[in-house]
Amino acid sequence: MRNFKMVLAYDGTNYSGWQIQKGALTIEEVLEKAIHAITREKVRVMGSGRTDAGVHALGQVAHFRSKTQLSPSQLKRAVNSKLPSDIRILKLEEVPLNFHAQYWVKTKIYRYQIWNGEELPVFERDFLLYHPEKLDVMSMKRASRLLLGRHDFSSFGVNRHLKGGRKENSVRMMKKAIVKKKGFYVTIELEADGFLYKMVRSIVGTLLAVGEGKLTPDDFKKILSEKNRSSAGQTAPPQGLFLVKVKY
Amino acid sequence: MRNFKMVLAYDGTNYSGWQIQKGALTIEEVLEKAIHAITREKVRVMGSGRTDAGVHALGQVAHFRSKTQLSPSQLKRAVNSKLPSDIRILKLEEVPLNFHAQYWVKTKIYRYQIWNGEELPVFERDFLLYHPEKLDVMSMKRASRLLLGRHDFSSFGVNRHLKGGRKENSVRMMKKAIVKKKGFYVTIELEADGFLYKMVRSIVGTLLAVGEGKLTPDDFKKILSEKNRSSAGQTAPPQGLFLVKVKY
Repeated sequence: MRNFKMVLAYDGTNYSGWQIQKGALTIEEVLEKAIHAITREKVRVMGSGRTDAGVHALGQVAHFRSKTQLSPSQLKRAVNSKLPSDIRILKLEEVPLNFHAQYWVKTKIYRYQIWNGEELPVFERDFLLYHPEKLDVMSMKRASRLLLGRHDFSSFGVNRHLKGGRKENSVRMMKKAIVKKKGFYVTIELEADGFLYKMVRSIVGTLLAVGEGKLTPDDFKKILSEKNRSSAGQTAPPQGLFLVKVKY
Repeated sequence: MRNFKMVLAYDGTNYSGWQIQKGALTIEEVLEKAIHAITREKVRVMGSGRTDAGVHALGQVAHFRSKTQLSPSQLKRAVNSKLPSDIRILKLEEVPLNFHAQYWVKTKIYRYQIWNGEELPVFERDFLLYHPEKLDVMSMKRASRLLLGRHDFSSFGVNRHLKGGRKENSVRMMKKAIVKKKGFYVTIELEADGFLYKMVRSIVGTLLAVGEGKLTPDDFKKILSEKNRSSAGQTAPPQGLFLVKVKY
């Protein structure tokens, strides 16, 4: 048995997210079928984590085990030839059998793209949140810095119940939280050792409320410290969100 | 009556080209309906020329006449709000009543984008021709220079019959013909005082045959001088083609 690590890019627009669900088209399922078409094995593709419906990836990572005799470059080319053009394997390499795309994650980087101008660009329309109203980017920057360090992010994440009924620990280490404006693009980039379910989009929605003047950076600080999901702003829609990189 | 000039961007993927046809969705029709929704007038939108099904625009130009009382910036915002997100008015200004988007054209610039690498980029997949096989770009550059100047381009264009049964003159002045390679992108840019029907895609298809070694630059020269449509290479598919700019 061999273990393979893949770096993947995908346009999430036409998918119901990463994880296999009955009656819905997901990235994981499409990958498993493409690998099956080449190896004739029923493989399980294990991602670094789920991405939600409509969320994109520039560098999702996943692993799978196979008995194939193909070299990694042959396997990459063959599986890509079976994938639709909105999912692509960018890198494929053989890794030790104990490598695990989810458990070995050190940090992940997510980026959220907002178009803060009047005319949404035609050729990027599926990859931007359209927000033509004025944004106070300086206040968003100030608020974003409050995320840095180790925090209980309950205010920005939905707790998932783990096997055995325990609740997920919601403490995460935020290593980077950057708000940038360049032309009409406002970009929010977050790097942490893990993210709760919908955490990035909830942070983005709350930072947007700060940018709109509905919340101050002090309100933002209070929301974070309250550890209460109902304090935060709205969850931003998925089309602006990219999983940029997974570090091991 | 007032006359308005628009600069337009559109993603041609989901349209049957510019010109109104029965039973097909076209850019012209969608624009006329959006303008009607605002002005309640039955306007005729006159483009600088047609673009074929699947061809994109970064700077198509069109004009229309209206009795609207709105300012150009109000009209632009209002019409854009009625347009689907794959068509956008980038600029709208009032022009003299005699301005005509087609008759006043000095030159047009078209760009054709080819992806000369193994993995077609996920987020640009609808805007590139996928051509993973090796291309001799130096020979393509040499051939492209033969296009410069005034030529009868019959070998690369389909003659259209004009009103009155006359055939279209197929002499055009090619001002720029540039083949560039940057990373895996090969770009062909052409500027002329006019283009015959399917001329850009026919030139691109023939330049690709040169890049593949099926034709030499000398063959290319012979094809141009033969003024015979059947000598040229295949017509390249529309998704790599952009109308970049129309100069007046």
